Amino acid sequence: MEAAEFVIEILCTGNELLSGTIVDTNAQWISSKITDAGGFVRRITVVGDEVNEISSAVKESIERKPNWLIVSGGLGPTYDDKTLEGIGTALNLKLVLDNNAVEMLRKSYTLHGLTTNYELNHTRLKMARIPEGSTPIQNPVGSAPAVLIEIANKTTKIICLPGIPKELKAIFSENILPQIKKSISDFYIVRSFCETIGISEAMLAPTLSSIVDMYSSDSIYVKTHPQGYTSDNKPRLRIQIISKGKDRSKVQIRYSNILNTLIENIELLGGKINSNVKL
Amino acid sequence: MEAAEFVIEILCTGNELLSGTIVDTNAQWISSKITDAGGFVRRITVVGDEVNEISSAVKESIERKPNWLIVSGGLGPTYDDKTLEGIGTALNLKLVLDNNAVEMLRKSYTLHGLTTNYELNHTRLKMARIPEGSTPIQNPVGSAPAVLIEIANKTTKIICLPGIPKELKAIFSENILPQIKKSISDFYIVRSFCETIGISEAMLAPTLSSIVDMYSSDSIYVKTHPQGYTSDNKPRLRIQIISKGKDRSKVQIRYSNILNTLIENIELLGGKINSNVKL
Repeated sequence: MEAAEFVIEILCTGNELLSGTIVDTNAQWISSKITDAGGFVRRITVVGDEVNEISSAVKESIERKPNWLIVSGGLGPTYDDKTLEGIGTALNLKLVLDNNAVEMLRKSYTLHGLTTNYELNHTRLKMARIPEGSTPIQNPVGSAPAVLIEIANKTTKIICLPGIPKELKAIFSENILPQIKKSISDFYIVRSFCETIGISEAMLAPTLSSIVDMYSSDSIYVKTHPQGYTSDNKPRLRIQIISKGKDRSKVQIRYSNILNTLIENIELLGGKINSNVKL
Repeated sequence: MEAAEFVIEILCTGNELLSGTIVDTNAQWISSKITDAGGFVRRITVVGDEVNEISSAVKESIERKPNWLIVSGGLGPTYDDKTLEGIGTALNLKLVLDNNAVEMLRKSYTLHGLTTNYELNHTRLKMARIPEGSTPIQNPVGSAPAVLIEIANKTTKIICLPGIPKELKAIFSENILPQIKKSISDFYIVRSFCETIGISEAMLAPTLSSIVDMYSSDSIYVKTHPQGYTSDNKPRLRIQIISKGKDRSKVQIRYSNILNTLIENIELLGGKINSNVKL
């Protein structure tokens, strides 16, 4: 196994995600950052704003022992923001008013020039009640602090991020991604999308199988995505190619080999490559 | 409990969803259709194209006994389309070549005028190897049939849909949604989004709590979504209101009561309502 096996799970909370009111983009954004850094997102779970649902999902995730469990949403001041209560239940940790978190809230409100009208009442202080022993992280965009939970005898670090994308992205990029990158050193990745016309997924399947058999599944990924048909009934296909690992030149060579094998077989099968765009 | 408790779980498979390559919109689309029909999506899970991961997720879901488990993706002809293998492993069902599924494939290829070049070789026939005792459903857009699995001693029906959105939507709308709607008769829902300026989530939290305490959580849903600040630092808030249940007039009255309570309190708190749009 050449590539680092650094496993992440993501848990998104929010009834609005289960009622189809909004499309969750947080999980996709986090996944793409983790993948680029060389980590592996193994599972994404979405549950509603229910303490028992959140607690069950957290317990199940911890049993699978990922390196990190990244939780999104449910840190706000309203009645249905229940993430910390759910995590407290899962880990048997009381929620306690954290002085650092209170200071962070004060700082956030000052930042928006809202000190006079926005006293720290009971509702707002809810955002500073965090599982005992955990660490709050300043929210540079909104108010609710993120919460980092590291438990001595568990392998999994848990980070709770606010669900509002701007806030989540700011805290993840500044505080969490650097920690994850530090754990996964020397990682390189080449990704591209190749657009073809005139070959179907089924026609190219044997080529894909033979490529996949040649390499470890940790070091490459090749996947066909059917894109329907042209007006003259020719199948359109997008092929995703990923090569990754700790050795930059091996990553490059593997990528070129795969691309060349694909080009050769696509042409043999009478297909045409329209473009190959590196990401 | 006035509203029908008809529980759905969704399982999306695909490495591309875990690497952040694409945003999954299937789960959101299915969720919104289920919610509109009066069903309740309790959990969404995303796993990669690994037999063991799919099998674990299916087993875990079945233990939670939803009425339906809707599975998206992994029915195609390529090496990494492993949904049926994963489900077979979970339920201890062999994959067998199904004659009806073979006919459906033939029909699909004919539909695209592809009979001459597209013989039903081993790779393509993979799409007709389905768990023994299950029922294939014609794919009216692409080729891979959907697969319905009803197990005598289990409460959960499993439907496997192709991951390509156009295909998934066609089969779900034509074959699955009507079945679900039949199980949930007499269901009404009113949904709206109310846009406000000048009140924060925290300011409105006590009003929300008091509304929520007045009704059963099965019959209403009220949720604030912060939308940042205006140029003169006033908080912008979107409020989602849902009233639902079996009795149309009760649903309407509940909705009006909630809206009036919100309007009254928002004005008392110095806020302004910009719009209230029914969906």
